[in-house]
Amino acid sequence: MPRSVAAHRQAVVELLTTARAAKGNLRLPLLEALGKALAGDVYAPLSLPPFPNSQMDGFAVRSAGIPDGGAELRVAAPVPAGASPASLKAGFAAPIMTGAMIPDGADAVVPIEKATPNTFPEPAAADALVRLPPVAPGTYVRHSGSDIETGDLALAAGTLLGPAQLGLLAALGLDLVEVREPFRVLLVTTGDEVVEPGQELAPGKIYDSNGTLLEASMRQAGMEVTRTGISDDNPDTLLSVLHRYTQDPRNPVDIIVTTGGVSKGAYEVVRQAMSGQAVDFLPVAMQPGGPQGLGTFDGTPFLGFPGNPVSCLVSFEMFLRPALSQVQGTPAPRPVQRARLAEPLTSPDGKHQVRRGSVGTDGILRMEGGAGSHLVHALARANALVQIPSDVTELAKGDEVEVWML
Amino acid sequence: MPRSVAAHRQAVVELLTTARAAKGNLRLPLLEALGKALAGDVYAPLSLPPFPNSQMDGFAVRSAGIPDGGAELRVAAPVPAGASPASLKAGFAAPIMTGAMIPDGADAVVPIEKATPNTFPEPAAADALVRLPPVAPGTYVRHSGSDIETGDLALAAGTLLGPAQLGLLAALGLDLVEVREPFRVLLVTTGDEVVEPGQELAPGKIYDSNGTLLEASMRQAGMEVTRTGISDDNPDTLLSVLHRYTQDPRNPVDIIVTTGGVSKGAYEVVRQAMSGQAVDFLPVAMQPGGPQGLGTFDGTPFLGFPGNPVSCLVSFEMFLRPALSQVQGTPAPRPVQRARLAEPLTSPDGKHQVRRGSVGTDGILRMEGGAGSHLVHALARANALVQIPSDVTELAKGDEVEVWML
Repeated sequence: MPRSVAAHRQAVVELLTTARAAKGNLRLPLLEALGKALAGDVYAPLSLPPFPNSQMDGFAVRSAGIPDGGAELRVAAPVPAGASPASLKAGFAAPIMTGAMIPDGADAVVPIEKATPNTFPEPAAADALVRLPPVAPGTYVRHSGSDIETGDLALAAGTLLGPAQLGLLAALGLDLVEVREPFRVLLVTTGDEVVEPGQELAPGKIYDSNGTLLEASMRQAGMEVTRTGISDDNPDTLLSVLHRYTQDPRNPVDIIVTTGGVSKGAYEVVRQAMSGQAVDFLPVAMQPGGPQGLGTFDGTPFLGFPGNPVSCLVSFEMFLRPALSQVQGTPAPRPVQRARLAEPLTSPDGKHQVRRGSVGTDGILRMEGGAGSHLVHALARANALVQIPSDVTELAKGDEVEVWML
Repeated sequence: MPRSVAAHRQAVVELLTTARAAKGNLRLPLLEALGKALAGDVYAPLSLPPFPNSQMDGFAVRSAGIPDGGAELRVAAPVPAGASPASLKAGFAAPIMTGAMIPDGADAVVPIEKATPNTFPEPAAADALVRLPPVAPGTYVRHSGSDIETGDLALAAGTLLGPAQLGLLAALGLDLVEVREPFRVLLVTTGDEVVEPGQELAPGKIYDSNGTLLEASMRQAGMEVTRTGISDDNPDTLLSVLHRYTQDPRNPVDIIVTTGGVSKGAYEVVRQAMSGQAVDFLPVAMQPGGPQGLGTFDGTPFLGFPGNPVSCLVSFEMFLRPALSQVQGTPAPRPVQRARLAEPLTSPDGKHQVRRGSVGTDGILRMEGGAGSHLVHALARANALVQIPSDVTELAKGDEVEVWML
């Protein structure tokens, strides 16, 4: 009986968990960590804000010093952002800029608009006076630690580091961050029929799109990719390629991914090359991308994807990418939405079908091409993978389906 | 009257359109074009599939040669993928593998499972026979051009090149692609109070998170970023930094972005430095990120963002990023969803409020932190920007709001 999509994904998670256990961490400048996953919990080395500061341009005051009817106060030296002001004396109000430190003795800010006069006096003006209304303590004060307190958890291990997370680390004064070392993948496309783009195309041959499609997907997912070039349908060729790369200590391989040669035909190069290795070839109850290989080659985690480009992309998106998100923390999972079908659909019983479609701004889902796994032009127009569970065989126009946004 | 969000975004679009007109294109290997935008329309130099091929492992036959009751046929030489087979003679069936070229004279494939015997004979077996059921013409044949025909539009100018689009170009045999040259941005953070992460923090000072946050955002959006380091609150310092970088012919600048110094306070370094330049400082009816500068500095497009980190991120996401998507073709627009509020919200009348929140797998939106534009820890927990239109002042728990997924 074919394996379910969930069971096969779990098997890929376990394979990556093993691979992850053998990997280390890297200490990187913040910007080099963009898109990588945090290695360990980070605790705040300081509070944010580090000191109480003003949320407005205005006057810093002691609120208790202004009675209900307001008060006329003497104008103290102005407090620009970045300054460490003197304590505020009783009877004074200090002009203060947004972000500037609240002086000791002050506990509230009156915005400049509410002052009389409603402009700041010239800094040189001695003995200037300002009339201010009463104000509740804490008004327009950003308290120290109101965003995060010293010692609190800032970011948890495994957090994917995007702009906001790196911005937080910078705000905390950190210029280096420890991230999980990316997985290094060895990517081998196979097939006598496959030719590198840019070369001459003899009759019966096709250009290799799997290598480009998967390398791009893997790079976006944070993997480091080594390509071997195309391996032909002779198992000995494939074995010698795999041995050459996996035995090179200068360029260690964490995961091998092959494309093609995993079905039940007469010439299945990956199946043949893996005989004697701890690799299972099995049907997953999914269309496209049903035939899958999974195991280890000489101890290195191994995934064998099928040979059609849409099958490759679906295999990556359904198995490897979610497993990377879960085990490595990068990439972010695909956003999941629900969308309404613009047209009826049928799907084979007992197979989870993954179709390609485009969700418009109206939330309506239009199919891109048919079910065929060779339709790479249709794939290039799609913005979503359409998930049709294995027990669903018919859907009507207007029915809601789950889509994964690409 | 403050400018609307839409009107300011349109002004940024116009600024970038001018900048775009001065830029060229680059011809790159496919993988280097990942995440960039196609410069011109690409038409298919060949059809996909390039030749009719088999969708199954089975026997290629002439359908007219098998009567209703089936037929016993002689087994021809097998056709592996990649081969250019001889024509099929009458009375023969050719073993054919998935993806292999349909021989001249054949017009359908009978899957191996329906053959008797249901395995392929040894290639050396002469005079082997196979019994096959009748089959309709075209069965399990992928016709040449069924995905795309020679000369058809494959990808339109401006298409963002992701894995599927690069895979299509590879399938079409292209190894180079012409993309729009990325924008080069000069990023200047300003403020006497701001210190580089990793340095000592004196009282009253804060660490610069804007530089990291915006550089990361801009890189993800496909921009090339030059950082000047922090410029202090002296307008002459800022002017000399801007002159030094914009007059360096080795490193031309397409767009200048500054942070801070655009409000109405007493020390607004960017406003002061831009006096005499064609730069407008204006309120946009948005919170946070209301004060904005926009124009040209010595002819170079200029954007002045406010100084708080959340304001910077919101300015980038609401104005620069969508304008880049529209004008440059990269990055992809943020996915827009609707989500239900976990809690009631209030919002100021007449201002489009952008709050930060997390949409759970249950579709429920929880706020991350309050409205304060300094809450960078809360920002780092959010996965969505919550869009509250300017005419909405109150929302109840369970109300639906628009969110942009980060």
